[in-house]
Amino acid sequence: MVAESEFSLIEQYFSSLTAEREDVTLGIGDDCALLQCPQGKELAVSIDTLVEGVHFFADVDPHALGFKALAVNLSDLAAMGAAPAWFTLALTLPENNPAWLEGFSSGLATAAKASSIQLVGGDTTRGPLTISIQVHGLVDAGQAVRRDGAKPGDRIYVSGTLGDAGAALKHRLEAWSPDVLNDADWAALQQRLEYPTPRNALAEPLRHFANAAIDISDGLLADLSHILKRSDVGARLQTHDLPLSSSMKKLPKELARELALSSGDDYELCFTVPPKLADELEQQCSDITCIGEITAQSGLILVGASGQETTANIRKGYDHFSA
Amino acid sequence: MVAESEFSLIEQYFSSLTAEREDVTLGIGDDCALLQCPQGKELAVSIDTLVEGVHFFADVDPHALGFKALAVNLSDLAAMGAAPAWFTLALTLPENNPAWLEGFSSGLATAAKASSIQLVGGDTTRGPLTISIQVHGLVDAGQAVRRDGAKPGDRIYVSGTLGDAGAALKHRLEAWSPDVLNDADWAALQQRLEYPTPRNALAEPLRHFANAAIDISDGLLADLSHILKRSDVGARLQTHDLPLSSSMKKLPKELARELALSSGDDYELCFTVPPKLADELEQQCSDITCIGEITAQSGLILVGASGQETTANIRKGYDHFSA
Repeated sequence: MVAESEFSLIEQYFSSLTAEREDVTLGIGDDCALLQCPQGKELAVSIDTLVEGVHFFADVDPHALGFKALAVNLSDLAAMGAAPAWFTLALTLPENNPAWLEGFSSGLATAAKASSIQLVGGDTTRGPLTISIQVHGLVDAGQAVRRDGAKPGDRIYVSGTLGDAGAALKHRLEAWSPDVLNDADWAALQQRLEYPTPRNALAEPLRHFANAAIDISDGLLADLSHILKRSDVGARLQTHDLPLSSSMKKLPKELARELALSSGDDYELCFTVPPKLADELEQQCSDITCIGEITAQSGLILVGASGQETTANIRKGYDHFSA
Repeated sequence: MVAESEFSLIEQYFSSLTAEREDVTLGIGDDCALLQCPQGKELAVSIDTLVEGVHFFADVDPHALGFKALAVNLSDLAAMGAAPAWFTLALTLPENNPAWLEGFSSGLATAAKASSIQLVGGDTTRGPLTISIQVHGLVDAGQAVRRDGAKPGDRIYVSGTLGDAGAALKHRLEAWSPDVLNDADWAALQQRLEYPTPRNALAEPLRHFANAAIDISDGLLADLSHILKRSDVGARLQTHDLPLSSSMKKLPKELARELALSSGDDYELCFTVPPKLADELEQQCSDITCIGEITAQSGLILVGASGQETTANIRKGYDHFSA
């Protein structure tokens, strides 16, 4: 439980801004929230932490931070084929800053309302800015899409476009600013970094069509490799088929390809689908792209435009504890 | 999701050390954990964060810290009458320190095994030491014990003894060291501060007998006042009936009383029971003490040994954002 003024802080900024769901018996304000999990459903839960200076810049717009903190968790639910239901917020703050809290809670609310997810509890503590959100989703029992179900012959799909957030991050971190990109491009790429779109609309098609899925937070190669490892399979990727935004298409092909393969933070989904279901999937879903196929042979082969093959050096994406 | 080496960190130290439950379809290692909530049960969830320098000292034994981080959350489940089921761990660490991780995970495991609760997911990030744990418990639908159910005439009970953790904290913070306490006393009080006993064994009696309950994290007066406010009632406490440990009984009466009323961190339970059920409750439960009764009149009256009455100045306990 939390002391009265902390509780008031949560109540003041957060309690009324998210969806109100009928399956919440008791929300914020007791030792626990009480939630109703319907018969025949399994509960899907995921927790993610964002730390200032590690996952976001100290000068980030609090609205964007609030949005993204929830969006990255919603993305985990989407990747399992689960529908968003409830979330909790553990917020560690260096100070009680009303302007910051208003922006943050407003961004959080924007993401929450779009997904019909309700804030049901939390804890506010004083300390270095750290945000932990746990999401709870519901999925028909036995129907969740895991990482370990990919089969040889499956087509590999990704949603949206890849590399945008990585380009925005490179711009910020390395003062990288190629002439081909104009202000509108940077605004679009920055938007992708700050306001990733959780692909919860794909959860239902995933449950129907996909054998395996993951969300792309650390980069396509790093995240696809989790599917390959868990499913004990390999993959061939057609790297000229990687979906790129109009801004990314302005970049040199090799650089765009590198960002699309290896940079993180796009929060698109990568999933595998049996070939016999591919046509029906593509009829039902727009904004997805087939980029390769699962192989019985382990390893990750990258196939270029002229058919040349290279074995991928699987990058691990951003790693908090490597050297 | 987390990068591979972070995930390995969680797997290496945490994945095999807690209970293995049959209601966990999928544990650590995918985008989400998948959990089975039985029909007829409600899900009780609570999240708590511990921040270095705020909730614990930088030099704390990591074993004690791991134990307490889970214990304070288990206490929230006990206060609702819910049985522990699953938990997640969001761990922010300044460095990958194997000795620290071994101690911390071992303490966590000790608390987890005692409560048959399974670690089902987590996130490890780099940053200032911060620990967020979310617990999930199960309770018969409609049977959870809330803060808002206290009725005039209810007897007020507390579990265990009060003020021990507060005395240990005062010793550490103020170099307070009265002659009447010897090394064994300090060891016992320190044990109470570092290894609070979550009262999960009381969850079932609470569901049967109690109208309202809360766990005492911020001090008896502060936490009881939450029950009074939510239930729209008042209380009379017999302050000479407050349960004290043998060490606390050595202190001057007024000081012991003050610590028992106002210091936090004991993680005992405070609950209210209809008078007609009091005898049966006391037959079934040892280590509980009746300390007063709920009144229709609002306010909190403290009654001394000779019957003198004072109105409590309700202390708020430790407040992260006051002044």
